[in-house]
Amino acid sequence: MMEYSSMKPGDVRRLIREGKFTTFTSGVCNGYAQANLAILPKELAFDFLLFAQRNPKPCPVLDVTEAGNPEPRLAAPGADIRFDIPKYRIYRKGELTDEVTDLKQYWRQDLVAFLLGCSFSFEGPMLDAGLEVRHITEDHNVPMYITDIPCTPAGVFHGPMVVSMRPMTPENAIRAVQVTSRMPSVHGAPVHIGDPAAIGIRDISKPDFGDPSTIRPGEIPVFWACGVTPQAVAMSVKPEFMITHAPGHMFITDLLNADLSVL
Amino acid sequence: MMEYSSMKPGDVRRLIREGKFTTFTSGVCNGYAQANLAILPKELAFDFLLFAQRNPKPCPVLDVTEAGNPEPRLAAPGADIRFDIPKYRIYRKGELTDEVTDLKQYWRQDLVAFLLGCSFSFEGPMLDAGLEVRHITEDHNVPMYITDIPCTPAGVFHGPMVVSMRPMTPENAIRAVQVTSRMPSVHGAPVHIGDPAAIGIRDISKPDFGDPSTIRPGEIPVFWACGVTPQAVAMSVKPEFMITHAPGHMFITDLLNADLSVL
Repeated sequence: MMEYSSMKPGDVRRLIREGKFTTFTSGVCNGYAQANLAILPKELAFDFLLFAQRNPKPCPVLDVTEAGNPEPRLAAPGADIRFDIPKYRIYRKGELTDEVTDLKQYWRQDLVAFLLGCSFSFEGPMLDAGLEVRHITEDHNVPMYITDIPCTPAGVFHGPMVVSMRPMTPENAIRAVQVTSRMPSVHGAPVHIGDPAAIGIRDISKPDFGDPSTIRPGEIPVFWACGVTPQAVAMSVKPEFMITHAPGHMFITDLLNADLSVL
Repeated sequence: MMEYSSMKPGDVRRLIREGKFTTFTSGVCNGYAQANLAILPKELAFDFLLFAQRNPKPCPVLDVTEAGNPEPRLAAPGADIRFDIPKYRIYRKGELTDEVTDLKQYWRQDLVAFLLGCSFSFEGPMLDAGLEVRHITEDHNVPMYITDIPCTPAGVFHGPMVVSMRPMTPENAIRAVQVTSRMPSVHGAPVHIGDPAAIGIRDISKPDFGDPSTIRPGEIPVFWACGVTPQAVAMSVKPEFMITHAPGHMFITDLLNADLSVL
Protein backbone atom coordinates (compact mmCIF):
# COMPACT_ATOMS: atom_id res chain seq x y z
CA MET A 1 0.00 0.00 0.00
CA MET A 2 3.01 2.31 0.32
CA GLU A 3 2.66 3.33 -3.30
CA TYR A 4 -1.03 4.24 -3.08
CA SER A 5 -0.68 6.11 0.22
CA SER A 6 1.27 8.95 -1.37
CA MET A 7 -0.71 9.15 -4.63
CA LYS A 8 -3.09 11.97 -5.51
CA PRO A 9 -6.84 11.19 -5.36
CA GLY A 10 -7.39 11.86 -9.06
CA ASP A 11 -4.70 9.35 -10.01
CA VAL A 12 -6.12 6.60 -7.81
CA ARG A 13 -9.65 7.31 -9.05
CA ARG A 14 -8.36 6.89 -12.62
CA LEU A 15 -6.87 3.49 -11.72
CA ILE A 16 -10.20 2.51 -10.14
CA ARG A 17 -12.10 3.69 -13.24
CA GLU A 18 -9.76 1.63 -15.47
CA GLY A 19 -10.28 -1.45 -13.30
CA LYS A 20 -6.65 -1.44 -12.13
CA PHE A 21 -7.45 -0.80 -8.46
CA THR A 22 -10.14 -3.10 -7.08
CA THR A 23 -9.62 -3.41 -3.33
CA PHE A 24 -10.12 -1.63 0.03
CA THR A 25 -9.23 2.06 0.11
CA SER A 26 -7.93 2.37 3.68
CA GLY A 27 -4.42 3.85 3.74
CA VAL A 28 -4.83 5.24 0.22
CA CYS A 29 -4.11 8.94 -0.52
CA ASN A 30 -3.00 9.93 2.96
CA GLY A 31 -4.35 13.29 4.08
CA TYR A 32 -7.40 13.22 1.79
CA ALA A 33 -10.94 12.63 3.01
CA GLN A 34 -12.66 9.42 2.00
CA ALA A 35 -16.43 9.20 1.85
CA ASN A 36 -19.35 6.83 2.31
CA LEU A 37 -21.74 6.68 -0.66
CA ALA A 38 -25.54 6.55 -0.61
CA ILE A 39 -27.49 6.95 -3.85
CA LEU A 40 -31.27 7.39 -3.69
CA PRO A 41 -34.06 8.37 -6.07
CA LYS A 42 -34.83 12.10 -6.09
CA GLU A 43 -38.22 11.68 -4.41
CA LEU A 44 -36.41 10.56 -1.23
CA ALA A 45 -33.56 13.07 -1.53
CA PHE A 46 -35.11 15.97 0.38
CA ASP A 47 -36.05 13.79 3.35
CA PHE A 48 -32.60 12.16 3.35
CA LEU A 49 -30.78 15.52 3.15
CA LEU A 50 -33.00 16.84 5.94
CA PHE A 51 -32.23 13.74 8.00
CA ALA A 52 -28.51 14.39 7.50
CA GLN A 53 -28.92 18.06 8.38
CA ARG A 54 -30.75 17.12 11.60
CA ASN A 55 -28.17 14.48 12.53
CA PRO A 56 -24.87 16.07 11.56
CA LYS A 57 -22.73 13.93 13.86
CA PRO A 58 -23.59 10.55 12.28
CA CYS A 59 -24.38 12.03 8.83
CA PRO A 60 -21.67 14.53 7.86
CA VAL A 61 -22.54 15.58 4.30
CA LEU A 62 -19.47 16.24 2.14
CA ASP A 63 -21.27 16.53 -1.21
CA VAL A 64 -24.65 15.95 -2.84
CA THR A 65 -24.95 15.66 -6.61
CA GLU A 66 -27.72 17.20 -8.72
CA ALA A 67 -30.25 14.56 -9.86
CA GLY A 68 -28.89 12.58 -12.82
CA ASN A 69 -25.48 14.26 -12.73
CA PRO A 70 -22.77 11.77 -11.67
CA GLU A 71 -20.10 14.41 -10.96
CA PRO A 72 -19.47 15.31 -7.29
CA ARG A 73 -18.43 18.83 -8.24
CA LEU A 74 -17.48 20.02 -4.77
CA ALA A 75 -15.72 16.99 -3.34
CA ALA A 76 -13.97 15.86 -6.55
CA PRO A 77 -14.48 17.96 -9.69
CA GLY A 78 -14.16 15.79 -12.80
CA ALA A 79 -14.81 12.54 -10.94
CA ASP A 80 -17.65 10.21 -11.92
CA ILE A 81 -19.56 8.60 -9.08
CA ARG A 82 -20.58 5.74 -11.40
CA PHE A 83 -17.05 4.47 -12.04
CA ASP A 84 -14.68 5.84 -9.39
CA ILE A 85 -15.43 3.49 -6.49
CA PRO A 86 -13.91 -0.02 -6.52
CA LYS A 87 -17.10 -1.83 -5.53
CA TYR A 88 -20.80 -0.95 -5.23
CA ARG A 89 -23.82 -2.65 -3.71
CA ILE A 90 -27.26 -2.53 -5.32
CA TYR A 91 -30.34 -2.77 -3.09
CA ARG A 92 -33.99 -3.19 -4.09
CA LYS A 93 -36.57 -2.72 -1.34
CA GLY A 94 -33.74 -3.01 1.22
CA GLU A 95 -32.46 -6.36 -0.15
CA LEU A 96 -28.93 -6.69 -1.53
CA THR A 97 -29.43 -7.81 -5.14
CA ASP A 98 -26.05 -7.21 -6.78
CA GLU A 99 -22.43 -6.24 -6.19
CA VAL A 100 -20.76 -4.49 -9.12
CA THR A 101 -17.57 -2.61 -10.03
CA ASP A 102 -19.35 0.18 -11.91
CA LEU A 103 -22.86 1.61 -12.19
CA LYS A 104 -23.12 1.76 -16.00
CA GLN A 105 -26.17 -0.50 -16.10
CA TYR A 106 -27.79 0.91 -12.95
CA TRP A 107 -27.48 4.68 -13.33
CA ARG A 108 -30.74 6.62 -13.80
CA GLN A 109 -31.57 10.28 -14.41
CA ASP A 110 -33.51 10.55 -11.14
CA LEU A 111 -30.65 9.45 -8.88
CA VAL A 112 -29.02 11.73 -6.30
CA ALA A 113 -25.67 10.71 -4.78
CA PHE A 114 -24.76 11.61 -1.20
CA LEU A 115 -21.11 11.54 -0.11
CA LEU A 116 -20.87 11.34 3.68
CA GLY A 117 -17.73 11.83 5.73
CA CYS A 118 -16.01 8.88 7.38
CA SER A 119 -13.94 8.42 10.51
CA PHE A 120 -10.72 7.93 8.53
CA SER A 121 -10.71 11.76 8.46
CA PHE A 122 -10.29 12.14 12.20
CA GLU A 123 -8.14 9.09 12.81
CA GLY A 124 -5.27 10.74 10.90
CA PRO A 125 -5.27 13.80 13.18
CA MET A 126 -5.59 11.48 16.23
CA LEU A 127 -2.50 9.55 15.16
CA ASP A 128 -0.73 12.86 14.42
CA ALA A 129 -1.57 13.94 18.00
CA GLY A 130 0.19 10.84 19.30
CA LEU A 131 -3.00 8.98 20.23
CA GLU A 132 -3.12 5.24 19.71
CA VAL A 133 -6.09 4.07 17.66
CA ARG A 134 -6.63 0.51 18.82
CA HIS A 135 -8.16 -1.10 15.74
CA ILE A 136 -5.34 0.32 13.62
CA THR A 137 -2.77 -1.08 16.07
CA GLU A 138 -4.58 -4.43 16.05
CA ASP A 139 -5.13 -4.26 12.29
CA HIS A 140 -8.83 -5.04 12.22
CA ASN A 141 -12.07 -3.25 11.37
CA VAL A 142 -13.32 -0.60 13.83
CA PRO A 143 -15.97 -2.02 16.21
CA MET A 144 -19.43 -0.52 15.62
CA TYR A 145 -22.55 -0.78 17.77
CA ILE A 146 -26.25 -0.04 17.33
CA THR A 147 -27.25 2.17 20.28
CA ASP A 148 -30.56 3.18 21.82
CA ILE A 149 -29.82 6.85 21.02
CA PRO A 150 -32.58 7.85 18.60
CA CYS A 151 -31.63 9.94 15.58
CA THR A 152 -33.86 12.97 14.99
CA PRO A 153 -36.37 11.75 12.38
CA ALA A 154 -37.01 13.54 9.07
CA GLY A 155 -39.84 12.61 6.74
CA VAL A 156 -39.74 8.84 6.18
CA PHE A 157 -36.32 8.39 7.78
CA HIS A 158 -35.81 7.44 11.43
CA GLY A 159 -33.75 4.99 13.47
CA PRO A 160 -31.06 4.56 16.11
CA MET A 161 -27.56 5.99 15.96
CA VAL A 162 -24.70 3.62 15.16
CA VAL A 163 -21.44 4.43 16.95
CA SER A 164 -17.81 3.40 16.53
CA MET A 165 -15.67 2.74 19.62
CA ARG A 166 -12.03 3.39 20.39
CA PRO A 167 -10.63 2.43 23.84
CA MET A 168 -8.47 5.15 25.44
CA THR A 169 -6.75 6.00 28.69
CA PRO A 170 -8.64 8.83 30.43
CA GLU A 171 -5.85 11.24 29.51
CA ASN A 172 -5.99 10.25 25.86
CA ALA A 173 -9.78 10.35 25.89
CA ILE A 174 -9.62 14.01 26.90
CA ARG A 175 -7.11 14.75 24.16
CA ALA A 176 -9.25 12.85 21.65
CA VAL A 177 -12.25 15.05 22.55
CA GLN A 178 -10.13 18.11 21.81
CA VAL A 179 -8.74 16.78 18.53
CA THR A 180 -12.06 15.58 17.13
CA SER A 181 -13.98 18.69 18.28
CA ARG A 182 -11.97 20.55 15.66
CA MET A 183 -13.67 18.47 12.97
CA PRO A 184 -17.45 18.91 13.34
CA SER A 185 -17.96 18.12 9.65
CA VAL A 186 -16.57 14.59 10.03
CA HIS A 187 -18.38 13.28 13.13
CA GLY A 188 -16.85 15.79 15.57
CA ALA A 189 -16.56 15.18 19.31
CA PRO A 190 -17.55 11.83 20.85
CA VAL A 191 -21.21 11.21 21.68
CA HIS A 192 -20.43 9.13 24.79
CA ILE A 193 -17.57 8.14 27.11
CA GLY A 194 -17.63 5.20 29.49
CA ASP A 195 -20.48 2.83 30.39
CA PRO A 196 -21.68 1.08 27.20
CA ALA A 197 -25.01 0.16 28.85
CA ALA A 198 -25.88 3.84 29.20
CA ILE A 199 -26.36 4.03 25.42
CA GLY A 200 -27.94 0.62 25.07
CA ILE A 201 -24.88 -1.49 24.25
CA ARG A 202 -25.24 -4.81 26.07
CA ASP A 203 -21.92 -6.50 25.30
CA ILE A 204 -18.94 -4.38 24.31
CA SER A 205 -17.08 -7.52 23.18
CA LYS A 206 -19.72 -8.22 20.52
CA PRO A 207 -19.95 -5.32 18.06
CA ASP A 208 -22.89 -5.25 15.61
CA PHE A 209 -20.50 -4.46 12.74
CA GLY A 210 -16.70 -4.70 12.44
CA ASP A 211 -14.44 -6.50 14.91
CA PRO A 212 -13.97 -6.21 18.70
CA SER A 213 -11.04 -4.12 19.99
CA THR A 214 -9.08 -5.05 23.10
CA ILE A 215 -9.90 -2.78 26.07
CA ARG A 216 -6.93 -2.74 28.44
CA PRO A 217 -7.14 -2.25 32.23
CA GLY A 218 -7.60 1.42 33.09
CA GLU A 219 -9.00 2.27 29.68
CA ILE A 220 -12.49 3.56 28.96
CA PRO A 221 -14.43 3.13 25.75
CA VAL A 222 -14.96 6.34 23.76
CA PHE A 223 -17.85 6.39 21.28
CA TRP A 224 -18.23 8.47 18.13
CA ALA A 225 -21.26 8.78 15.85
CA CYS A 226 -20.62 6.49 12.88
CA GLY A 227 -21.16 7.01 9.15
CA VAL A 228 -22.88 3.62 8.93
CA THR A 229 -25.92 5.28 10.55
CA PRO A 230 -27.38 6.97 7.45
CA GLN A 231 -27.05 3.82 5.33
CA ALA A 232 -28.67 1.73 8.05
CA VAL A 233 -31.47 4.26 8.44
CA ALA A 234 -32.06 4.57 4.68
CA MET A 235 -32.10 0.79 4.34
CA SER A 236 -34.70 0.37 7.08
CA VAL A 237 -37.15 2.35 4.92
CA LYS A 238 -36.68 -0.35 2.23
CA PRO A 239 -36.50 2.16 -0.61
CA GLU A 240 -37.51 0.89 -4.05
CA PHE A 241 -33.88 1.39 -5.19
CA MET A 242 -30.65 2.32 -3.42
CA ILE A 243 -26.93 2.08 -4.16
CA THR A 244 -24.07 2.19 -1.64
CA HIS A 245 -20.33 1.57 -1.72
CA ALA A 246 -19.26 -1.91 -0.62
CA PRO A 247 -17.86 -1.80 2.95
CA GLY A 248 -14.28 -0.54 3.00
CA HIS A 249 -14.40 0.47 -0.67
CA MET A 250 -14.80 4.23 -0.20
CA PHE A 251 -14.91 7.20 -2.54
CA ILE A 252 -11.63 9.15 -2.35
CA THR A 253 -12.31 12.89 -2.48
CA ASP A 254 -10.01 15.80 -3.35
CA LEU A 255 -10.80 17.36 0.04
CA LEU A 256 -7.92 17.52 2.50
CA ASN A 257 -8.79 16.28 5.97
CA ALA A 258 -7.11 19.48 7.15
CA ASP A 259 -9.72 21.51 5.24
CA LEU A 260 -12.49 19.78 7.20
CA SER A 261 -11.08 21.12 10.47
CA VAL A 262 -12.51 24.34 11.91
CA LEU A 263 -9.33 25.02 13.90
CA MET B 1 -35.96 46.00 27.18
CA MET B 2 -34.56 44.93 30.55
CA GLU B 3 -37.68 42.93 31.21
CA TYR B 4 -37.59 41.01 27.93
CA SER B 5 -33.85 40.30 28.08
CA SER B 6 -34.24 37.88 30.98
CA MET B 7 -37.47 36.22 29.84
CA LYS B 8 -37.69 32.66 28.51
CA PRO B 9 -38.22 32.24 24.75
CA GLY B 10 -41.57 30.45 25.18
CA ASP B 11 -42.94 33.34 27.24
CA VAL B 12 -41.90 36.00 24.72
CA ARG B 13 -43.24 33.89 21.82
CA ARG B 14 -46.59 33.74 23.66
CA LEU B 15 -46.64 37.54 23.98
CA ILE B 16 -45.86 37.79 20.26
CA ARG B 17 -48.63 35.32 19.43
CA GLU B 18 -51.11 37.33 21.51
CA GLY B 19 -50.09 40.56 19.77
CA LYS B 20 -48.56 42.01 22.95
CA PHE B 21 -44.98 42.13 21.63
CA THR B 22 -44.72 43.77 18.19
CA THR B 23 -41.24 45.20 17.84
CA PHE B 24 -37.56 44.31 17.15
CA THR B 25 -36.21 41.26 18.96
CA SER B 26 -32.60 42.33 19.55
CA GLY B 27 -31.69 42.12 23.23
CA VAL B 28 -34.61 39.79 23.93
CA CYS B 29 -34.06 36.44 25.74
CA ASN B 30 -30.35 36.81 26.35
CA GLY B 31 -28.38 33.63 25.73
CA TYR B 32 -30.91 32.12 23.31
CA ALA B 33 -30.35 31.86 19.57
CA GLN B 34 -32.52 33.97 17.29
CA ALA B 35 -33.15 32.94 13.71
CA ASN B 36 -33.79 34.29 10.22
CA LEU B 37 -36.90 32.90 8.54
CA ALA B 38 -37.35 31.83 4.92
CA ILE B 39 -40.50 29.98 3.84
CA LEU B 40 -40.64 28.44 0.37
CA PRO B 41 -42.91 26.01 -1.51
CA LYS B 42 -41.83 22.38 -1.23
CA GLU B 43 -40.78 22.15 -4.87
CA LEU B 44 -37.92 24.56 -4.12
CA ALA B 45 -37.09 23.12 -0.70
CA PHE B 46 -34.55 20.49 -1.79
CA ASP B 47 -32.54 22.97 -3.86
CA PHE B 48 -32.67 25.54 -1.04
CA LEU B 49 -31.59 23.01 1.60
CA LEU B 50 -28.80 21.83 -0.70
CA PHE B 51 -27.73 25.46 -1.23
CA ALA B 52 -27.59 25.91 2.54
CA GLN B 53 -25.64 22.67 2.96
CA ARG B 54 -23.11 23.79 0.34
CA ASN B 55 -22.77 27.26 1.87
CA PRO B 56 -22.81 26.60 5.60
CA LYS B 57 -21.08 29.83 6.58
CA PRO B 58 -23.72 32.22 5.18
CA CYS B 59 -26.59 29.69 5.55
CA PRO B 60 -26.40 28.03 8.97
CA VAL B 61 -29.53 25.85 9.15
CA LEU B 62 -31.02 25.66 12.67
CA ASP B 63 -34.27 23.93 11.72
CA VAL B 64 -36.38 22.95 8.72
CA THR B 65 -40.05 22.12 9.12
CA GLU B 66 -41.87 19.28 7.36
CA ALA B 67 -44.06 20.57 4.52
CA GLY B 68 -47.33 22.01 5.86
CA ASN B 69 -46.31 21.60 9.51
CA PRO B 70 -45.79 25.00 11.17
CA GLU B 71 -43.98 23.63 14.26
CA PRO B 72 -40.19 23.98 14.34
CA ARG B 73 -39.85 20.86 16.45
CA LEU B 74 -36.09 20.99 16.95
CA ALA B 75 -35.50 24.69 17.51
CA ALA B 76 -38.67 25.41 19.50
CA PRO B 77 -41.03 22.50 20.23
CA GLY B 78 -44.60 23.74 20.58
CA ALA B 79 -43.94 27.00 18.73
CA ASP B 80 -45.94 27.97 15.64
CA ILE B 81 -43.99 29.59 12.83
CA ARG B 82 -47.20 31.26 11.58
CA PHE B 83 -47.79 33.34 14.69
CA ASP B 84 -44.60 33.56 16.76
CA ILE B 85 -42.69 36.24 14.84
CA PRO B 86 -43.65 39.91 15.33
CA LYS B 87 -43.67 40.83 11.64
CA TYR B 88 -43.52 38.93 8.33
CA ARG B 89 -42.96 39.92 4.71
CA ILE B 90 -44.85 38.30 1.84
CA TYR B 91 -43.18 38.14 -1.57
CA ARG B 92 -44.66 37.11 -4.92
CA LYS B 93 -42.23 36.58 -7.80
CA GLY B 94 -39.59 38.42 -5.74
CA GLU B 95 -41.77 41.50 -5.14
CA LEU B 96 -42.79 42.54 -1.61
CA THR B 97 -46.59 42.48 -1.63
CA ASP B 98 -47.56 42.55 2.03
CA GLU B 99 -46.29 42.97 5.59
CA VAL B 100 -48.30 41.11 8.22
CA THR B 101 -48.19 40.19 11.91
CA ASP B 102 -49.28 36.58 11.38
CA LEU B 103 -49.52 34.08 8.50
CA LYS B 104 -53.06 32.84 9.08
CA GLN B 105 -54.25 33.91 5.64
CA TYR B 106 -51.02 32.96 3.83
CA TRP B 107 -50.16 29.51 5.18
CA ARG B 108 -50.34 26.59 2.72
CA GLN B 109 -49.86 22.84 3.04
CA ASP B 110 -46.91 22.86 0.62
CA LEU B 111 -44.81 25.37 2.57
CA VAL B 112 -41.47 24.50 4.18
CA ALA B 113 -39.97 26.89 6.75
CA PHE B 114 -36.22 27.31 7.13
CA LEU B 115 -34.80 28.82 10.32
CA LEU B 116 -31.27 30.08 9.72
CA GLY B 117 -28.79 31.16 12.38
CA CYS B 118 -27.99 34.84 12.88
CA SER B 119 -24.96 36.74 14.08
CA PHE B 120 -26.60 37.68 17.38
CA SER B 121 -25.47 34.19 18.42
CA PHE B 122 -21.76 34.96 18.16
CA GLU B 123 -21.92 38.59 19.25
CA GLY B 124 -22.86 37.50 22.77
CA PRO B 125 -19.75 35.32 23.13
CA MET B 126 -17.65 38.13 21.59
CA LEU B 127 -18.92 40.58 24.21
CA ASP B 128 -18.36 37.93 26.90
CA ALA B 129 -14.75 37.64 25.67
CA GLY B 130 -14.29 41.37 26.23
CA LEU B 131 -14.37 42.29 22.54
CA GLU B 132 -16.05 45.53 21.53
CA VAL B 133 -18.71 45.10 18.84
CA ARG B 134 -18.80 48.49 17.15
CA HIS B 135 -22.39 48.64 15.89
CA ILE B 136 -23.61 47.67 19.36
CA THR B 137 -21.45 50.43 20.91
CA GLU B 138 -22.73 52.88 18.31
CA ASP B 139 -26.28 51.54 18.60
CA HIS B 140 -27.00 51.06 14.92
CA ASN B 141 -27.61 48.16 12.52
CA VAL B 142 -24.58 46.03 11.57
CA PRO B 143 -23.11 47.11 8.20
CA MET B 144 -23.58 44.50 5.47
CA TYR B 145 -22.01 44.32 2.02
CA ILE B 146 -22.61 42.36 -1.19
CA THR B 147 -19.24 40.81 -2.12
CA ASP B 148 -17.84 39.24 -5.29
CA ILE B 149 -17.36 35.92 -3.44
CA PRO B 150 -19.65 33.51 -5.28
CA CYS B 151 -21.72 31.09 -3.22
CA THR B 152 -21.59 27.49 -4.40
CA PRO B 153 -24.72 27.11 -6.55
CA ALA B 154 -27.35 24.40 -6.00
CA GLY B 155 -30.17 23.75 -8.42
CA VAL B 156 -31.86 27.06 -9.25
CA PHE B 157 -30.10 28.97 -6.45
CA HIS B 158 -26.91 30.97 -6.98
CA GLY B 159 -25.52 34.38 -6.10
CA PRO B 160 -22.84 36.33 -4.23
CA MET B 161 -22.15 36.08 -0.51
CA VAL B 162 -23.33 38.94 1.70
CA VAL B 163 -21.01 39.72 4.63
CA SER B 164 -21.32 41.69 7.85
CA MET B 165 -18.38 43.79 9.07
CA ARG B 166 -17.02 44.56 12.51
CA PRO B 167 -13.91 46.80 12.88
CA MET B 168 -11.30 45.42 15.31
CA THR B 169 -7.77 46.06 16.49
CA PRO B 170 -5.46 43.36 15.11
CA GLU B 171 -5.23 41.80 18.57
CA ASN B 172 -9.00 41.69 18.93
CA ALA B 173 -9.38 40.41 15.37
CA ILE B 174 -7.25 37.38 16.29
CA ARG B 175 -9.32 36.77 19.43
CA ALA B 176 -12.54 37.16 17.40
CA VAL B 177 -11.32 34.46 14.99
CA GLN B 178 -10.84 32.14 17.95
CA VAL B 179 -14.18 32.92 19.58
CA THR B 180 -16.26 32.59 16.41
CA SER B 181 -14.41 29.45 15.22
CA ARG B 182 -16.06 27.69 18.14
CA MET B 183 -19.44 28.34 16.51
CA PRO B 184 -19.37 26.85 13.01
CA SER B 185 -23.16 26.42 13.05
CA VAL B 186 -23.78 30.17 13.35
CA HIS B 187 -21.46 31.63 10.66
CA GLY B 188 -18.21 30.47 12.29
CA ALA B 189 -14.83 32.10 11.62
CA PRO B 190 -14.56 35.25 9.48
CA VAL B 191 -14.40 34.88 5.70
CA HIS B 192 -12.03 37.85 5.24
CA ILE B 193 -9.83 40.26 7.20
CA GLY B 194 -8.51 43.57 5.88
CA ASP B 195 -8.74 45.06 2.37
CA PRO B 196 -12.44 45.41 1.42
CA ALA B 197 -11.57 45.62 -2.30
CA ALA B 198 -10.16 42.09 -2.21
CA ILE B 199 -13.71 40.77 -1.84
CA GLY B 200 -15.32 43.29 -4.18
CA ILE B 201 -16.38 45.95 -1.69
CA ARG B 202 -15.76 49.35 -3.28
CA ASP B 203 -16.64 51.74 -0.46
CA ILE B 204 -16.57 50.48 3.12
CA SER B 205 -18.41 53.64 4.24
CA LYS B 206 -21.44 52.71 2.11
CA PRO B 207 -22.86 49.35 3.18
CA ASP B 208 -25.48 47.71 0.94
CA PHE B 209 -27.66 46.97 3.99
CA GLY B 210 -27.58 48.32 7.56
CA ASP B 211 -25.57 51.34 8.68
CA PRO B 212 -21.86 52.24 8.44
CA SER B 213 -19.66 51.60 11.50
CA THR B 214 -16.79 53.91 12.46
CA ILE B 215 -13.38 52.37 11.71
CA ARG B 216 -10.79 53.91 14.02
CA PRO B 217 -7.09 54.41 13.19
CA GLY B 218 -5.17 51.15 13.55
CA GLU B 219 -8.29 49.02 13.17
CA ILE B 220 -8.96 46.56 10.37
CA PRO B 221 -12.34 45.47 9.08
CA VAL B 222 -13.26 41.84 9.85
CA PHE B 223 -15.89 40.22 7.64
CA TRP B 224 -18.25 37.36 8.49
CA ALA B 225 -20.64 35.53 6.19
CA CYS B 226 -24.10 37.00 6.77
CA GLY B 227 -27.49 35.39 7.17
CA VAL B 228 -28.98 37.87 4.69
CA THR B 229 -27.27 35.82 1.93
CA PRO B 230 -29.83 32.99 1.65
CA GLN B 231 -32.79 35.40 1.56
CA ALA B 232 -31.07 37.54 -1.10
CA VAL B 233 -30.22 34.44 -3.13
CA ALA B 234 -33.74 32.98 -2.83
CA MET B 235 -35.26 36.31 -3.80
CA SER B 236 -33.12 36.61 -6.93
CA VAL B 237 -34.80 33.46 -8.27
CA LYS B 238 -38.13 35.33 -7.98
CA PRO B 239 -39.98 32.35 -6.57
CA GLU B 240 -43.75 32.30 -7.16
CA PHE B 241 -44.23 32.66 -3.36
CA MET B 242 -41.92 33.32 -0.44
CA ILE B 243 -42.26 34.52 3.14
CA THR B 244 -39.53 35.99 5.35
CA HIS B 245 -39.37 37.71 8.72
CA ALA B 246 -39.30 41.52 8.58
CA PRO B 247 -35.74 42.81 9.21
CA GLY B 248 -34.88 42.81 12.91
CA HIS B 249 -38.05 40.85 13.81
CA MET B 250 -36.47 37.45 14.36
CA PHE B 251 -37.74 34.09 15.52
CA ILE B 252 -36.58 33.40 19.08
CA THR B 253 -35.60 29.74 19.46
CA ASP B 254 -35.24 27.58 22.57
CA LEU B 255 -31.64 26.81 21.56
CA LEU B 256 -28.95 28.23 23.82
CA ASN B 257 -26.17 30.01 21.96
CA ALA B 258 -23.85 27.94 24.15
CA ASP B 259 -25.33 24.78 22.62
CA LEU B 260 -24.34 25.98 19.15
CA SER B 261 -20.67 26.08 20.16
CA VAL B 262 -18.46 23.06 19.39
CA LEU B 263 -15.99 23.97 22.15
